[in-house]
Amino acid sequence: MNYTQNTYLEMIEAALAQYIYPVNDGQALVADAMRYSIQNGGKRIRPMLTLEFCRVCGGNPQFALPFACAVEMIHTYSLIHDDLPCMDDDDLRRGKPSCHKQFGESYALLAGDGLLTLAFETLTKATDVAPSDIVRAVRVLSDLAGVNGMIGGQVIDLLSEEKQVDYSTLHCIDKLKTGALIKSAALLGCIAAGVQDETILSAAKTYAENIGFAFQVVDDILDVTSDTATLGKPVGSDEKNAKSTFVSLLGLEACKTLADKLTADAVQALSAIPNNTEFLETLANQLAVRQK
Amino acid sequence: MNYTQNTYLEMIEAALAQYIYPVNDGQALVADAMRYSIQNGGKRIRPMLTLEFCRVCGGNPQFALPFACAVEMIHTYSLIHDDLPCMDDDDLRRGKPSCHKQFGESYALLAGDGLLTLAFETLTKATDVAPSDIVRAVRVLSDLAGVNGMIGGQVIDLLSEEKQVDYSTLHCIDKLKTGALIKSAALLGCIAAGVQDETILSAAKTYAENIGFAFQVVDDILDVTSDTATLGKPVGSDEKNAKSTFVSLLGLEACKTLADKLTADAVQALSAIPNNTEFLETLANQLAVRQK
Repeated sequence: MNYTQNTYLEMIEAALAQYIYPVNDGQALVADAMRYSIQNGGKRIRPMLTLEFCRVCGGNPQFALPFACAVEMIHTYSLIHDDLPCMDDDDLRRGKPSCHKQFGESYALLAGDGLLTLAFETLTKATDVAPSDIVRAVRVLSDLAGVNGMIGGQVIDLLSEEKQVDYSTLHCIDKLKTGALIKSAALLGCIAAGVQDETILSAAKTYAENIGFAFQVVDDILDVTSDTATLGKPVGSDEKNAKSTFVSLLGLEACKTLADKLTADAVQALSAIPNNTEFLETLANQLAVRQK
Repeated sequence: MNYTQNTYLEMIEAALAQYIYPVNDGQALVADAMRYSIQNGGKRIRPMLTLEFCRVCGGNPQFALPFACAVEMIHTYSLIHDDLPCMDDDDLRRGKPSCHKQFGESYALLAGDGLLTLAFETLTKATDVAPSDIVRAVRVLSDLAGVNGMIGGQVIDLLSEEKQVDYSTLHCIDKLKTGALIKSAALLGCIAAGVQDETILSAAKTYAENIGFAFQVVDDILDVTSDTATLGKPVGSDEKNAKSTFVSLLGLEACKTLADKLTADAVQALSAIPNNTEFLETLANQLAVRQK
């Protein structure tokens, strides 16, 4: 079978809809909130990475679907909790009311908790993957999503609020807050294919770290160069909030050069993988030149 | 080795301290918040159940320690999130400032997320348990802690706020909100011992459901019969909040009879387990006659 971005998207949307399964009447409201947030037109980059890394490692992407969806659930819960009034207090998420605006704060909190918990339940649904590899997946995902990974990035971000931060702090925040989960997406794909070879795992990590970093640099570029209509969110918000960004620290031109360099390094890392990696090359390049 | 409640307590405290491991400076604050909340003198009933169910099923309680600690982490995260302003808005937890009062709301939110994530990471540290049993543990814990278990109970509780609820709704809330996690504690002990036998698993469930239900009934009794100094929290709070309780619905005497009946049923269920179950019998009886 020839897997395209569209094939993967269809697989992911169908599986996500199925994993948030019907619950009793009493809990239906929180399941609605979970569904509302997960089905809001995200790019699904993370789950796509999981499926394609499984494929290029010789596995069947179908078998990796539970892992792919688990990563997307973690991503979604983090957005719900990030938008809460005690965090970023964001009323909008991709142009729609954020979860707590739509369902109220307490249900948004519980919907986030529910998705985080469901992510680990979903990992166990990978019945075509060896139990020892499911355990590896639980370990990798919990580590990279936890206090030393994504949550750690949010903490450092909170501590840096309304402060000018230097390049290395900004890099550290992004590496943990965004990069760690992208890395887990790539690794879970390899694990679903049963990969033990450290060379392959290391190539997946390098690719993921570089596209994760490039993604954030491009985000900062777009906040300066795009317009609100194209971006789907207000531009210039970083400057307005006096927030340090790669653009404010390095300048626009250096950022463009950096994004290109990171994308090239990501593509370069793929040479360690024996199979055809064209899909992953294209994805890296798409993310670098994206307009939103 | 002869395992007593004190032996288990020492094992649990030492393991919990070890599992919340040192993180980089940046994340230390959230690790402090996690430790603050988990080390606040809880009774450790859940992890104790895990260790003892492992033992009565012929396993080594040491091997079940990661499972035991994982359940306690889930319990603690649920208390942190439950105390938040958007939920119960409680300033005190066991006589000390609740997590968000001590560390601020955003760190309390992240500390809860961190403990929930760490719980699943900790399950994978049970290296003496077969990978297929670790996968079973992830499945059972995520199911019973999730939207159809503990979180589901919190949702129904929220929906019932400031409403008079009937006996069956109240029973449903407690069964999910408190009972589900107690059940997972007992089941994880059996799973750590590699138990597949449905008779044993079913006995563990019945025992846990009954002591969980009895626990809540005794809680409601103590809110009426105890005093603030003994209980360590204000008595009469249920009546003040016009909250339906088993006492308000059934009366004090019927509640005492019910608690005794549930405790007897819990003890009765243990007869399906071939080993000496004296520890679990004593524990059930202690919980029924406790003063706080």
